[in-house]
Amino acid sequence: MPDSLPSDSVGLVTPQTLHFDEPLQLACGQVLKSWDLVVETYGTLNQDHTNAVLICHALSGHHHAAGYHSPGDRKPGWWDACIGPGKPIDTNRFFVVSINNLGGCHGSTGPNTVNPETGELYGPDFPVVTVQDWVNSQAVLADRLGIGCWAAVVGGSLGGMQALQWSISHPDRLKHAVVIASTPRLTAQNIAFNEVARRAITSDSDFHGGRYYEHNTLPRRGLMLARMVGHITYLSDASMGEKFGRELREQAYQFGYDAEFQVESYLRYQGERFSETFDANTYLLMTRALDYFDPAYETDNDLVKVMARARCEFLVLSFSSDWRFTPARSEELVNAMIAARRKVSYAEIDAPWGHDAFLIPTPRYNAVFSTYMARVAREVGA
Amino acid sequence: MPDSLPSDSVGLVTPQTLHFDEPLQLACGQVLKSWDLVVETYGTLNQDHTNAVLICHALSGHHHAAGYHSPGDRKPGWWDACIGPGKPIDTNRFFVVSINNLGGCHGSTGPNTVNPETGELYGPDFPVVTVQDWVNSQAVLADRLGIGCWAAVVGGSLGGMQALQWSISHPDRLKHAVVIASTPRLTAQNIAFNEVARRAITSDSDFHGGRYYEHNTLPRRGLMLARMVGHITYLSDASMGEKFGRELREQAYQFGYDAEFQVESYLRYQGERFSETFDANTYLLMTRALDYFDPAYETDNDLVKVMARARCEFLVLSFSSDWRFTPARSEELVNAMIAARRKVSYAEIDAPWGHDAFLIPTPRYNAVFSTYMARVAREVGA
Repeated sequence: MPDSLPSDSVGLVTPQTLHFDEPLQLACGQVLKSWDLVVETYGTLNQDHTNAVLICHALSGHHHAAGYHSPGDRKPGWWDACIGPGKPIDTNRFFVVSINNLGGCHGSTGPNTVNPETGELYGPDFPVVTVQDWVNSQAVLADRLGIGCWAAVVGGSLGGMQALQWSISHPDRLKHAVVIASTPRLTAQNIAFNEVARRAITSDSDFHGGRYYEHNTLPRRGLMLARMVGHITYLSDASMGEKFGRELREQAYQFGYDAEFQVESYLRYQGERFSETFDANTYLLMTRALDYFDPAYETDNDLVKVMARARCEFLVLSFSSDWRFTPARSEELVNAMIAARRKVSYAEIDAPWGHDAFLIPTPRYNAVFSTYMARVAREVGA
Repeated sequence: MPDSLPSDSVGLVTPQTLHFDEPLQLACGQVLKSWDLVVETYGTLNQDHTNAVLICHALSGHHHAAGYHSPGDRKPGWWDACIGPGKPIDTNRFFVVSINNLGGCHGSTGPNTVNPETGELYGPDFPVVTVQDWVNSQAVLADRLGIGCWAAVVGGSLGGMQALQWSISHPDRLKHAVVIASTPRLTAQNIAFNEVARRAITSDSDFHGGRYYEHNTLPRRGLMLARMVGHITYLSDASMGEKFGRELREQAYQFGYDAEFQVESYLRYQGERFSETFDANTYLLMTRALDYFDPAYETDNDLVKVMARARCEFLVLSFSSDWRFTPARSEELVNAMIAARRKVSYAEIDAPWGHDAFLIPTPRYNAVFSTYMARVAREVGA
């Protein structure tokens, strides 16, 4: 945390764990009898409970989206650039709810938590959950918090898929859905990269079929590889070129296979750090949720038909250099919304950082996002 | 092999091994005292020795570029589409030489051959060779074959880099260089993908520091992953979508991590097959040769200056959907050639198959390539 707290920070925040005994029916057929969600909230719920905004996280995200957990924290939450007083999601006006999804590894019920039925960690026995399952669990959370209707459900990437699913599954429980750097379904190439990541994890000899906790080990090498390949797809060729180019760590080629180029050393470092802090079973689960997401599947691939179920308004944002979920994928979604006579605002933001651009504040991104959210705030009387 | 040989096939071919006792100075500082190259030749060398064409292979390639080794072969050589009677590299006119590079794993001296000084396999002790080293070894091969000057040196991808290096290192020993789907240097993203591949191999517990032969094992899982990630970069998002889409192997989601989507199963199959037939140490070496290739390095990144050393004419070809080595990279090269007052023909071929397009015959690719090579043939009296 900086020495003095910036005036646009939500400041020190404390996550809380909410326990649910309502059985949750999952898409896979299993039922989760009891479960926990870890949440953080920023801002104040108004008297009419109309100003609540739900933040949905992406693959490696969690509930800690803004502010600091302690004065010693070096970095704020993952979306601090967009959440806080005067920021696009203005905590002076909105009551913001940020959660760790089921199956996550930051406190919510998932592979690295105890299965109450066995007294052991779930590990690989934790069911493969879907975006639909998450949205259903978030609806139970909304009930608990007394939120009948979200002012907005907001997310980037996998988080954007949740916002989209909310609009289809619970059309009367949100006024706006903000779908950023997302897609109505993964392409074969997207799935292929996820498959490489999963194979890296499951073929690590320390994976032990997902029961690595019992073997007092972690599939670090596999998870590191998974993160490295993922990381490349979050950046753009141009931004990697700008940041690293062909820069060497030494003066000349070493004629070996150690990290010689700065980009190699950066990727290894990021991969290693990630492999120490993230759970491998959760990584598998999150990538599968991405693969499976396909709301138009049940309408015979008719995206217009499924979007016609929505009642909310939409803001859809894409980023010019995002090759993971290209602007064309957002446009596909926007076109379906328009054909389904939904109200939608769309902007392609010119930004060089690839998919990660949704985490990086830029004037235009900030302006479009802030303007839209200010309208939402006025509408709901926030 | 088909029941009756197509009239445009070079037919049955037999590789030969050439032994060299000329010491080869390598870029890394080591000297290879004696070495073997496996070669195939197609067509007939004319009396004046002016009609020879050298084919340089890419990362996983080898000497078997055209024809069949036996009537039982299911597939011909890797570039059979472009080499044969009446094909772009017309064996009725040219004498074609195709080799397996040093460090390869198809018979030429490399990690999986015996080090004469120790009587053991080289394994990880085989030096990291460069594109420059290959070109120097190919020049010694040319001497042996009595070829003072190639009519053309031709290659795609890493092969194109060799053609380019020939034009710079031995400017008077080739009339034409054909540089297909290549680049004057790798980007940070290219290097990053290579690093993932190398880490997958070296972190496999069966790798044993490259001495897996001695442990009677192979780093199959790592090599499989390396191939899978490489394979994705050889295809385009669109062509993968066309071929696999989101097609499932079963009727519905299985809620697990086995291969459910056709694209997963395809990648695994390709990766597994590759991991049984290709040498992991060679894979490391080939990716490093790619990383290191940067002819403008010695002219302070002045590509024009280094291209001014060339004397030959150039054909440069790129493919519209190639995101590994984009058309922009070929254009960078072409612009440098023009600025250096070299003669160059350039075409961007519209093709949907990504980087792999250079292996797939299409009318326009075939027409441009054939027309250029026919001119080469006329010039050299072939």
